[in-house]
Amino acid sequence: MKIIHTPRHLGHSGHVELNNGQIVPAFEKPERVAMILDAIGARGLGPLVEPTAHGLDPLLAVHDPAYVRFLAQAWELWTAEGRDTPALPSFWRAPGMRFIEPDAIDGKLGHFSFDAGCCIVAGTWDAVQAGADAALTGVDLLSGGERAAFALCRPPGHHAHAGTMGGYCFINNAAVAAQGLRDRGAARVAILDVDYHHGNGTQAIFYERGDVLVCNIHADPMQEFPYFLGYADETGAGAGEGFNANFPLPWGTDYEGWSAALEAACGRVNAFAPDALIVSLGVDTYKHDPISQFRLDSPDYVGIGRRIAALGLPTLFVMEGGYAVEAIGVNVANTLEGFEQA
Amino acid sequence: MKIIHTPRHLGHSGHVELNNGQIVPAFEKPERVAMILDAIGARGLGPLVEPTAHGLDPLLAVHDPAYVRFLAQAWELWTAEGRDTPALPSFWRAPGMRFIEPDAIDGKLGHFSFDAGCCIVAGTWDAVQAGADAALTGVDLLSGGERAAFALCRPPGHHAHAGTMGGYCFINNAAVAAQGLRDRGAARVAILDVDYHHGNGTQAIFYERGDVLVCNIHADPMQEFPYFLGYADETGAGAGEGFNANFPLPWGTDYEGWSAALEAACGRVNAFAPDALIVSLGVDTYKHDPISQFRLDSPDYVGIGRRIAALGLPTLFVMEGGYAVEAIGVNVANTLEGFEQA
Ligand SMILES: [Zn+2]
Ligand SMILES: [Zn+2]
Repeated sequence: MKIIHTPRHLGHSGHVELNNGQIVPAFEKPERVAMILDAIGARGLGPLVEPTAHGLDPLLAVHDPAYVRFLAQAWELWTAEGRDTPALPSFWRAPGMRFIEPDAIDGKLGHFSFDAGCCIVAGTWDAVQAGADAALTGVDLLSGGERAAFALCRPPGHHAHAGTMGGYCFINNAAVAAQGLRDRGAARVAILDVDYHHGNGTQAIFYERGDVLVCNIHADPMQEFPYFLGYADETGAGAGEGFNANFPLPWGTDYEGWSAALEAACGRVNAFAPDALIVSLGVDTYKHDPISQFRLDSPDYVGIGRRIAALGLPTLFVMEGGYAVEAIGVNVANTLEGFEQA
Repeated sequence: MKIIHTPRHLGHSGHVELNNGQIVPAFEKPERVAMILDAIGARGLGPLVEPTAHGLDPLLAVHDPAYVRFLAQAWELWTAEGRDTPALPSFWRAPGMRFIEPDAIDGKLGHFSFDAGCCIVAGTWDAVQAGADAALTGVDLLSGGERAAFALCRPPGHHAHAGTMGGYCFINNAAVAAQGLRDRGAARVAILDVDYHHGNGTQAIFYERGDVLVCNIHADPMQEFPYFLGYADETGAGAGEGFNANFPLPWGTDYEGWSAALEAACGRVNAFAPDALIVSLGVDTYKHDPISQFRLDSPDYVGIGRRIAALGLPTLFVMEGGYAVEAIGVNVANTLEGFEQA
């Protein structure tokens, strides 16, 4: 399958996060893509293709205009005050506070974010746009008849809400792609999020829509980020009632427990009979991931790819998390190879 | 006037905050109290008295039980995972996320906070309880017939909501004191918050009550923390409609502009005819404050104290912010002296 990649992700480098009460280099780093490219090349997967520019309209189809405007201006506003450190939010909204976009950049950062891990540097916005273009180029490939494609997006996207960044995510690439498929004629699109963390942004964006099914397999939010979304009783609302499915799993889940949830999620996708599938592909389910607590092993990802292929749907893989840099390439390549060989 | 102080505030030491994208020692530090004690001693103000223990019930009268339970357990839960760094929240709630208290301490920290500046160390909870006891001891003094008292609380309190810490604040000492006065028979209590920052917590706690008037003079939240509360159109709700008054002022405001707002606020207090007054005394309005942008000078604080005295009310001063350590003592002593000499 075609793998959509551009080195423009490198602009999002040198960023940091607040972790355990300390500022540390972000676990989400450029080397992740380098390792994936290495493994893909070693397996003969590909070819690599460059994303094509799609502009801001497809982003604005799922994100708030004020938020996109903020992302485009944030670094300029931050540095206008003489600062040269990476921009990190520091202040948020308590329950009962007002939904107002402040004039000050520190206030804007809090207004449009939900953690202290969504760090903006000089090249962030360009990298984010390039990632969204990669996802949209994948949409073009599927619309053109390809069975599958892999959008090697970086930074990831599934935590980004319509108007809020967080969890290393700025633009929700999977949501942009799902909307892109709808706009190109797909009546129903399913999103299967296999990242260790709940794809809260993706869920929230489509929560009241019946045309996009969102299925999430992830760590129980009682124990794990994003904490405040991803519970089993979140089944959609309004026209979207019944079109959101969460499979929270406890710390320590191994492939046996995890694949049972995958089977259930695939059952939901089958029943939905979508025209296309988007896989939010995170491999932080891996047993040695530095910020995660599941126990999947590298060979398990072959099985994941194979099971997804059995759905028999045009499939766009969109890269999300995975922070065990030494294994991320193998785990992603295993998933794609399992899919292709099915 | 009696000055209520205990060295137990020193337990809240070594804490940090996220500022400009970096972890730095908190501007809110123990030396603030040392400088105030020095200045008070040099002027012959006082005497110093120790706070008496009042237990948790008066805190629970204005704070959520789950929140108080969290504050009491946070350090234990944080260190139970082998961590020895100061506990800082890292994750919050995006609009649309659920109001759920997670099991994980990182999730709890976010659930109960609204910034990355409310840092918990081993001695924080003891210092916080001692501060609330100082405010309540002040209430006892006023109830016993004293004209005025000064509760030298540290950490400060006015940013703390019923269920949320932030802005260096954990328990809202001014709110605890106002409720304490009500419980001892005062029919109406006014709170005058002269700190540079809006006292969002105090406002929120009493927003729907007509028995406690809250007046705030502060930096415009469009430009300044807490950003999402403190606008002029917030006038109270329900039974509290008309009993909240905000006087947001632009960066660069000097005493001429500031004292006009004080005059207006004092007019509101007079019209309310309260039985007692609580002054949330922050001196971060000072021209050299490191995190603030007003231009009050040290002699101006004499005028503030004098104007407050002219209200002719039993008055409890409760210490809030002020981060220019070299001047905080002079500015606080000037306020108290202006009050006493009026
Ligand atoms: Zn993840
Ligand atoms: Zn302040």
